[in-house]
Amino acid sequence: MRMVDLIEKKRDGVPLTEQEIRWLIHRYVAREVPDYQMAAFLMAVYFRGMTEGEMEAFTAAMAESGDKVDLSAVPGIKVDKHSSGGVGDTVTLILVPLMGAAGYVMAKLSGRALGHTGGTIDKFEAIPGVRTDLSPGEIIDQAKRIGVVIAEHTEDIAPADKLLYELRDVTGTVPSLPLIVGSILSKKLAGGADLIVLDVKCGDGAFMRTLPEAKELAEALVRVGNKLGKRFSALVTAMDQPLGWMAGNALEVKQAISVLRGEGPPDLEEITLALGAELLLLSGEESDEGKARDKLKRLVDSGAAWKKFVELVAAQGGDVRAVEEPELLPHAEEVQEVWAPRSGYVRKLSARKIGLAAGLLGAGREVKGQTVDPAAGVELLAKVGDRVEREQPLARLHVGRRELVEEAKRLVTEAFEIGTDFPLQGDLILARIR
Amino acid sequence: MRMVDLIEKKRDGVPLTEQEIRWLIHRYVAREVPDYQMAAFLMAVYFRGMTEGEMEAFTAAMAESGDKVDLSAVPGIKVDKHSSGGVGDTVTLILVPLMGAAGYVMAKLSGRALGHTGGTIDKFEAIPGVRTDLSPGEIIDQAKRIGVVIAEHTEDIAPADKLLYELRDVTGTVPSLPLIVGSILSKKLAGGADLIVLDVKCGDGAFMRTLPEAKELAEALVRVGNKLGKRFSALVTAMDQPLGWMAGNALEVKQAISVLRGEGPPDLEEITLALGAELLLLSGEESDEGKARDKLKRLVDSGAAWKKFVELVAAQGGDVRAVEEPELLPHAEEVQEVWAPRSGYVRKLSARKIGLAAGLLGAGREVKGQTVDPAAGVELLAKVGDRVEREQPLARLHVGRRELVEEAKRLVTEAFEIGTDFPLQGDLILARIR
Repeated sequence: MRMVDLIEKKRDGVPLTEQEIRWLIHRYVAREVPDYQMAAFLMAVYFRGMTEGEMEAFTAAMAESGDKVDLSAVPGIKVDKHSSGGVGDTVTLILVPLMGAAGYVMAKLSGRALGHTGGTIDKFEAIPGVRTDLSPGEIIDQAKRIGVVIAEHTEDIAPADKLLYELRDVTGTVPSLPLIVGSILSKKLAGGADLIVLDVKCGDGAFMRTLPEAKELAEALVRVGNKLGKRFSALVTAMDQPLGWMAGNALEVKQAISVLRGEGPPDLEEITLALGAELLLLSGEESDEGKARDKLKRLVDSGAAWKKFVELVAAQGGDVRAVEEPELLPHAEEVQEVWAPRSGYVRKLSARKIGLAAGLLGAGREVKGQTVDPAAGVELLAKVGDRVEREQPLARLHVGRRELVEEAKRLVTEAFEIGTDFPLQGDLILARIR
Repeated sequence: MRMVDLIEKKRDGVPLTEQEIRWLIHRYVAREVPDYQMAAFLMAVYFRGMTEGEMEAFTAAMAESGDKVDLSAVPGIKVDKHSSGGVGDTVTLILVPLMGAAGYVMAKLSGRALGHTGGTIDKFEAIPGVRTDLSPGEIIDQAKRIGVVIAEHTEDIAPADKLLYELRDVTGTVPSLPLIVGSILSKKLAGGADLIVLDVKCGDGAFMRTLPEAKELAEALVRVGNKLGKRFSALVTAMDQPLGWMAGNALEVKQAISVLRGEGPPDLEEITLALGAELLLLSGEESDEGKARDKLKRLVDSGAAWKKFVELVAAQGGDVRAVEEPELLPHAEEVQEVWAPRSGYVRKLSARKIGLAAGLLGAGREVKGQTVDPAAGVELLAKVGDRVEREQPLARLHVGRRELVEEAKRLVTEAFEIGTDFPLQGDLILARIR
């Protein structure tokens, strides 16, 4: 088999066989197929797409390109969740203890901040003392002991995805449905869970800007994922404005604590309950979505989810006091306000710009390996539908890196669209794909 | 400027600016843009094409990526020729001395055998003693002295083309019109000639299989070439069966000698005169194609072209006796015949298969840098339209490398399509683009 023949086949719109796809992923991970041939192949995939069979083979080959998480020694039903990335999306920090409180095993592998979106690992590490670089043995032990884990994704799981993602990032081949499907699913298939819920974001702050695009992706993910031996369902959720009031690491920990204590904000609670309810439906524990939500809501109201969160923080070396008294979490020395330039209703609030601003203030990374400031970020004081008066504060900037504060201010000001008419507001959950 | 932005622009069908194209060629030749990004860009060009302006900028940037041949110190009108590559196409060895005899300066830079097509440098070097690795100074001196030169293309002329061609070859991006235009024209523009005729081959043995494709390429070449300051014209010529009777290095030298002595074969003579006539029209020396051909034909008949050939061979160190008595040229120790499997008319004769067979026998290279056998090749004994009887010899195989002789035999047998009806025969010159 020669890589150039496979490139030409794809270029000419001829589907590759399962064997050919396995060969090319295997040889690429072994560094025998060079990056320049893979780059040409990826661009041909961008233009030609993949058949259903190709997507399955591609995803399976990527999932099998490295180690798999083996949770078979842990009793119980293992669940997992993936989000395509949003702003203020601290759902994982809430859903993991909630599912733990519901009696499920959830050993979540997560990543760090990327572009304008935050990363669960950076957020969790904003709690003083928390360790996320757990070994496979530590993950299994903790899952056995308390049912829940949040650990950093290692490079041994689906290494093909890491290599391909880095190449796609610099070759203009990120926005390709089959490549996105392979990337998302390979990591979930190599993970230890049986039931997985996916949150496909849609809108200004998401990778998929339109509902048809987001639905197409969600449908492909569920279809291909189910075909490959695990059970998937997906929600398409709105990501036009940020979730909750916070974008930043410690700020989002505070926000998660608030939801876990039953104090909202409602959008974050709604998405978390909806995703959790899907897992209860997948497991067969409930057959009615409303009942599944109510059951989970009761676990919040009873304090069971909060208790599990404290247990999780403690198990990973975190300072429990800092979550019980969130004012002990890292906080910025300097806070600046952004004021409304005019009176009116907040008609739009760009999640993307808020995310970028939070990143500039220190919550994100401009280059890989940069340290994030746990205290930095944007705290919103108004959201879509709110009435604001001229010079009223719209947001507080928690300043980590000082040098880009003016640019962050400009972005936050631009993020708010203020007009005279009350805005139409859409649903938060846009579609359910089962 | 970031390469990934240019890739995405091309991917999305947005034309690049001249500045962007110059930047990417410049940075690529400087090895600052990595192969994997260029490969993705080339595949995006394959799918999106280039506008006229992009093709001009791309070609100009490639032409300017290295040294230029400077023939300004040589008096006279400088002409050049390019062929897109065929089988039995020994036109250069005839046209160069013919144009020299007509009083033009023709310092032709050529390449070596590639794939199923031969290379002028390998052919010329089949004459014992001939040197083709001439320095720029030697080329100028010889052009001043006798008007004609055949030298090997150096890597300093249009290095972007060499780098890009090697990358295209392994990334499935060879068959892209704008990339072909850039590759062909950049070398001609960096050459020292003012008037250039192009021979775009069309058919089974050519890169362009159909007439519309070949015409589209020829038109683009002439249009873009003329725009960039030199004068071009192009012929589209048939390459279904080989030109003449020979495919192989010394064999084609013999064939060229035969044409230069006025002894045909007629197809090779016709193409050579037609290409030469285009140059006389481009220079303004003649305004009528027929008269231009007649003038050149008289230079063959008078022996002037032959005399110039002998002068050329001598100037580059070749053994003049070996061209005056061609039986002194290298010849194979072993000759095998291929017989007709049935009686009938030769209806088709695949140039591609004959070219591949000649290559296997030793006339070509399977890998870069391999030595060719000057004596090896295929001598045809029948061509399209000829009546053959069962077990009559169709071809003689001049064996260089013994190990592949059976495969070569099979290819030559397959190359002949023999049937009961006399075949329709098309024109040799399919189109003229001026």
